[in-house]
Amino acid sequence: MSTDSQNYLLPAGLADGLPPDAAFEAVMVERLMAVFAAWGYERVKPPLIEFEDSLLSGPGAAMSAHTFRLMDPVSQRMMGLRADITPQVARIAASRLKNSPRPLRLSYAGQVLRVRGEQMRPERQLGQAGTELVGAPSAEADAEAVLLAVDALRQAGVPYLAVDLNLPTLTPSILAAHGVKERGVQEQALLIGALDRKDVAAVRKLSGDSAILLEGLLRAVGPAKQALAKLNALDLPAPAAAQRQRLNEVVDLILSAAPDLPLTIDPTDHRGFEYHTGITFSLLGRRVSGEFGRGGRYINQAGEEATGFTLYLNTVLAALPVPAAPRRIFLPRGTTPQQAASLRADGWVTIQDLGLAAVDPAAEAKRLGCQHLWNGREVQAL
Amino acid sequence: MSTDSQNYLLPAGLADGLPPDAAFEAVMVERLMAVFAAWGYERVKPPLIEFEDSLLSGPGAAMSAHTFRLMDPVSQRMMGLRADITPQVARIAASRLKNSPRPLRLSYAGQVLRVRGEQMRPERQLGQAGTELVGAPSAEADAEAVLLAVDALRQAGVPYLAVDLNLPTLTPSILAAHGVKERGVQEQALLIGALDRKDVAAVRKLSGDSAILLEGLLRAVGPAKQALAKLNALDLPAPAAAQRQRLNEVVDLILSAAPDLPLTIDPTDHRGFEYHTGITFSLLGRRVSGEFGRGGRYINQAGEEATGFTLYLNTVLAALPVPAAPRRIFLPRGTTPQQAASLRADGWVTIQDLGLAAVDPAAEAKRLGCQHLWNGREVQAL
Repeated sequence: MSTDSQNYLLPAGLADGLPPDAAFEAVMVERLMAVFAAWGYERVKPPLIEFEDSLLSGPGAAMSAHTFRLMDPVSQRMMGLRADITPQVARIAASRLKNSPRPLRLSYAGQVLRVRGEQMRPERQLGQAGTELVGAPSAEADAEAVLLAVDALRQAGVPYLAVDLNLPTLTPSILAAHGVKERGVQEQALLIGALDRKDVAAVRKLSGDSAILLEGLLRAVGPAKQALAKLNALDLPAPAAAQRQRLNEVVDLILSAAPDLPLTIDPTDHRGFEYHTGITFSLLGRRVSGEFGRGGRYINQAGEEATGFTLYLNTVLAALPVPAAPRRIFLPRGTTPQQAASLRADGWVTIQDLGLAAVDPAAEAKRLGCQHLWNGREVQAL
Repeated sequence: MSTDSQNYLLPAGLADGLPPDAAFEAVMVERLMAVFAAWGYERVKPPLIEFEDSLLSGPGAAMSAHTFRLMDPVSQRMMGLRADITPQVARIAASRLKNSPRPLRLSYAGQVLRVRGEQMRPERQLGQAGTELVGAPSAEADAEAVLLAVDALRQAGVPYLAVDLNLPTLTPSILAAHGVKERGVQEQALLIGALDRKDVAAVRKLSGDSAILLEGLLRAVGPAKQALAKLNALDLPAPAAAQRQRLNEVVDLILSAAPDLPLTIDPTDHRGFEYHTGITFSLLGRRVSGEFGRGGRYINQAGEEATGFTLYLNTVLAALPVPAAPRRIFLPRGTTPQQAASLRADGWVTIQDLGLAAVDPAAEAKRLGCQHLWNGREVQAL
């Protein structure tokens, strides 16, 4: 045994949650989950590990490179330590709950682990909370995902929240209609990269006869109504026009329910939306490093239309005001257990003397972070 | 993609938590944690994985054979996936919080993973919640650990709870005083095994001149007061007598605070108490498979006297009455977002129609498990 704390360094990207942060995180998770529950989303709890081939199926395929592997000594098969919970919930919907009525509303909260941290997000263990809405193809479903995330974050006390709507399938569908696909995968990737960077010159150079359209897309960015007006003025091919129509419906639904919500559109952005098949969104704060969360439409392992979102607890917690410390009262030796229980029932945090403070209860109380002392008859402020 | 749920079998001992169990578990964990917090125990949240050598240090050594190992690609060092949280909390007390005032009260809740399930407990992922009380050598500290566990389980709604106190260091200390140690490790192990089985004949055969004493110990079992009377009548060697004196003090403290608590003593039982150095206890239910939890005194990685306990959530949850289902109300298309928010604020779980139920809202409400329907003006029972 050693007191040398150098023996207790944690691996990079892993940390101990300490008081009072760990308690605050748990309280906030339950507050978010309570909002999800009030909207009819029922909680599921997938295991931390499962077989690699089920963990990385469907929407899970995108997480393969981020997932720790373990050998299961029981089955001799490879298992993965989950790097994301969404694919697990999609799996539950498609298997254990495949006979539950649709639309199926599910929620979850838990920890995920990643093989390596990212530059902007060095943590390798992350807390996630989120929802999935399965078997719901309508615009109302797209809007519900956004509005629920907004309600939960606002009820959690996030001081400023904006939503950015994206349509990551729009550009590929325009490119397909203009025959860019035939010009090869590499050229298409260059063009999508240029659109992501909003590099107008490169887009113009690469896009051939769709140049005017794509430049128009790049300009259809910003506050939802203005951006939609620009988007609606473009002459889109039929499949892309249908997607735009859906985006118009969803914007209307969101703004009629939450007229004060800062809502922006960036139709060409598709970074990080790897398995999505429709409208996606990011939940953004102000003076916050990273997003509060993101979500959007996808197809689950059973081929069902689904949408949902994941909140990143680190980012959410960092944006919230520090909670008030609880009222702690020191109970000197001889305080009856009944008296202690009565004070706890009144909302006090009681710190029972354990026989170390015979001399000066007030000093001992202060040493242990108590602002109050039970003097045998009443609460005494220190 | 496939709908074949055979693709989604989980590894043995791992399971999906489904509605309503997963939500119930989360609510009960937070209720237990709230009791711990009211007694001054502050929450910590160690990571799911850490370096093998820190995870398996001090009280963690006993879990080595149960722990999954992973290679850390960042440091190229071996990490372990925690099989128990107590050693992590002991590590935090001995390192990150080594300068916090003592006694230090910490609490935790989280998931642990085991390489293999046990016959009585096949699960390989288990939920734990517990507390550690560090730097507290007194009998009051031993009693506080028991009384806090009892208060938390009773507030959680456990219908019947009994506590069994053990003193796993008593027998070894008697054997040492009677020179059994010199007779070899194997003979000592045989004797301790016989005591665990309460095999009087074998104990008599193996124990030589300590036979009368050990037979007396085997009889000092049962309800605390009667068992203590028998134990107090034995002529124990000095170190064992000091341990007995502590047991007497702790029983007095527990019974004066919780006179109605079924409290038993089994001084020779030490099964499962592998790193303990003083009084230990098990929390037992009635018609429950396994214990609610267990705990006891140990020495942490910094050489500090500590005690604490772990609750096993599976067992606790299995003993609790099934919670009432929430009141669900179906909101047909056209219900305003403001109306929906108002119903949620009144405690309703709202299920918004997503455009699939134009024909018969009442039938759709029932299909989705709602006992109530919003008819545009009021709540209508179905």
